[in-house]
Amino acid sequence: MRMYDLIEKKKLGQELSTEEIYHIIDGYTKGEIPDYQISALLMAIYFKGMNVRERYDLTMAMRDSGDILDLSSIDGVKIDKHSTGGVGDKVTLVLGPIIASIGVPVAKMSGRGLGHTGGTIDKLEAFPGFNASLSEEDFINQVNSIKIAVTGQSKNLAPADKKLYALRDVTATVDEISLITSSVMSKKLAAGTDAIVLDVTVGDGAFMKNKESALELARSMVDIGKKADKKIAAFLTNMDEPLGFAVGNDLEVIEAINALKGQGPSDLMEVVYALGSQMIVFSGIEPDKAKARKLMEQAVADGSAYNKFIEFIKTQGGDDSFAKDTGKFVPAKHIIPVEAVQSGYIHGLKAEAIGLASMYLGGGRETFEDVIDMSVGVVLNKKVGDQINAGEPICFIHANDLDKAKHAEEMIRKATTISSEKCDHMKLIIDIVE
Amino acid sequence: MRMYDLIEKKKLGQELSTEEIYHIIDGYTKGEIPDYQISALLMAIYFKGMNVRERYDLTMAMRDSGDILDLSSIDGVKIDKHSTGGVGDKVTLVLGPIIASIGVPVAKMSGRGLGHTGGTIDKLEAFPGFNASLSEEDFINQVNSIKIAVTGQSKNLAPADKKLYALRDVTATVDEISLITSSVMSKKLAAGTDAIVLDVTVGDGAFMKNKESALELARSMVDIGKKADKKIAAFLTNMDEPLGFAVGNDLEVIEAINALKGQGPSDLMEVVYALGSQMIVFSGIEPDKAKARKLMEQAVADGSAYNKFIEFIKTQGGDDSFAKDTGKFVPAKHIIPVEAVQSGYIHGLKAEAIGLASMYLGGGRETFEDVIDMSVGVVLNKKVGDQINAGEPICFIHANDLDKAKHAEEMIRKATTISSEKCDHMKLIIDIVE
Repeated sequence: MRMYDLIEKKKLGQELSTEEIYHIIDGYTKGEIPDYQISALLMAIYFKGMNVRERYDLTMAMRDSGDILDLSSIDGVKIDKHSTGGVGDKVTLVLGPIIASIGVPVAKMSGRGLGHTGGTIDKLEAFPGFNASLSEEDFINQVNSIKIAVTGQSKNLAPADKKLYALRDVTATVDEISLITSSVMSKKLAAGTDAIVLDVTVGDGAFMKNKESALELARSMVDIGKKADKKIAAFLTNMDEPLGFAVGNDLEVIEAINALKGQGPSDLMEVVYALGSQMIVFSGIEPDKAKARKLMEQAVADGSAYNKFIEFIKTQGGDDSFAKDTGKFVPAKHIIPVEAVQSGYIHGLKAEAIGLASMYLGGGRETFEDVIDMSVGVVLNKKVGDQINAGEPICFIHANDLDKAKHAEEMIRKATTISSEKCDHMKLIIDIVE
Repeated sequence: MRMYDLIEKKKLGQELSTEEIYHIIDGYTKGEIPDYQISALLMAIYFKGMNVRERYDLTMAMRDSGDILDLSSIDGVKIDKHSTGGVGDKVTLVLGPIIASIGVPVAKMSGRGLGHTGGTIDKLEAFPGFNASLSEEDFINQVNSIKIAVTGQSKNLAPADKKLYALRDVTATVDEISLITSSVMSKKLAAGTDAIVLDVTVGDGAFMKNKESALELARSMVDIGKKADKKIAAFLTNMDEPLGFAVGNDLEVIEAINALKGQGPSDLMEVVYALGSQMIVFSGIEPDKAKARKLMEQAVADGSAYNKFIEFIKTQGGDDSFAKDTGKFVPAKHIIPVEAVQSGYIHGLKAEAIGLASMYLGGGRETFEDVIDMSVGVVLNKKVGDQINAGEPICFIHANDLDKAKHAEEMIRKATTISSEKCDHMKLIIDIVE
């Protein structure tokens, strides 16, 4: 089998066989096929796509390129949750403890943030001592004992994806449905859970900028999950503006803790309840979604979700006093309001620009080598649809450097649209694919 | 300027600026831009193409990546002739001496053969002692003294093309008009002549399989030549069957010598006269094409073309006794007829398969490291349109290995179509683009 012929085949829009796809992924993972042939193939895939069968084979070949976790010694139905990335996305921090408190085992592998979106592991490390590198044994034991554990990727999961992603990232071949699908799903399938709930973000701050492409991606990932005999559902959620009010690591953790105490922003809670009730249904604990949601609301109301969070942080080595008293988080040196220059209604708070402003302040990474400033970020005072008066703050910038704050303010001003016309609040759950 | 952005731009079908194209070619030639980004760009170009302005800039950037020959010290209008490659293509060997004998300076850089097509330099080396590596000075002096010199590429001409071609060859991005155009024209423009006559072959044995794509390529190359202020014309010539009767190095040289003596196959001579009369018109020696053709026919008839060939071979160090007595070429050990199994008319003698059969016998290279067996090849006994009786030879295989001969015979049989219906001879000159 010559790689040349496989590139030519895809270039002509023909279907690659299962054997051919495994040949490509095996050869590339082992370093037998050079980058320059793979990048030509990736560009051909960008233009010609892959059908469901090819996507499935590509996903499985990538999954099989490394270890596959065995979670069978965890009791109950194991469910993974994955987001395609957003700004102010602290869903896992809120959702995990709620459903764990109801009895759903949460065995979650999470990543670090890159670019304008944050990562769950970074946020959890806001708690001094938190150990995000659990051994497989400790990970499994913790889920069995307290129903929740979150760890960074410790095993050699889908190494083909790591190599391919790095290449796609420098050859402008990231934004293609087959490649995104196989990248996400190969890792999800290697993570060994029984069910998967996907949060496919849509809009300005998301990877998918419009509903059509997000729906296509959601459908594609759900198809692959089903072919692999997983329970799976995908929620299309709005990411035109940040989720909740807080953007930045400590700031989001504080918002998440407040949410677990019953003071969560309504948009954040809407996403948490939608994804969580689906996860509870998949777990078999409660087959009815509406009732599952009631269980979640009750877990927040009676404090069991919050208590589960404290237990989780403590068990994983984190200093839970920060969770009990969020005043212990050291704030940024400067908290600067960005005031509206006109009165009216907020029509836009572009999520990507606000995420980039937070990154610029030091709250995010451009490369994986960058060190994050946990205290900085942006806290919105208004959301899209809200009324605002001239002089009222649109948001507050949390900064440790005034020059950076000034630039961040400019970025946020450009990202904000205020008009005299009324405007609806944004619809959070746009669609569900199952 | 980030290479990533340039790939993305072309991927989206946008136009690359002059500065961007020079950045790419300079960076790649210097090794500052990696293969994997260039191959992704090449595949994007395959799908999105380049407009005339981009093709021109790409051609000029590639030309400027190395030396540009200065032929100004050669008297008269310097004219280059280039073929996009064919089977049995010995046009240069016949054409060069004819027009040189009329006074047109022939300063030709030629290449070696690869795949199913042969190269002029290989064929000239059939003459023991022939020096295909002239210094620039000797090359120019020889053209001034005897009007003809043919040499391999001695200078660092268009190194960007060498690198790009090698990459295209392994990433299935060879067959794209913009890339073919810039590859051919960058070398032609670096070779420093005043005029260029292109032989764009069309059909089974050619790079361009149909008239439409050949016309598009011809138009593209002529456009670039004109933008670069060159006199230029492109002839679309038939390559469905081999040109002439002989395929293989010594065999083609012998056929060329016979052609110079007035015994050339009619199809070969038709191409020679068409290209040659255009070159004479460009040279200014005779502005009328029909009269130019008469001059050529006369040069063959009165022996001056043949004498020019002898002089050329001798001046360049070759043993001209082989040209005077072609019986001196050592024939292959076995000459095996491939006999027709049915009577009828020849409808097809697929050029590519016959070229590959010759290569398989040892007459061609798969890689530039392969050594050529000069004596082997195929000599047709019939051409498309000819009548044939069962038992009559379609062709003769010249082989040094009987097993290889057997396999070559199978290849040729598969490439031959005989039917009882009458069939026209092939039209040689399909179109002219100027």
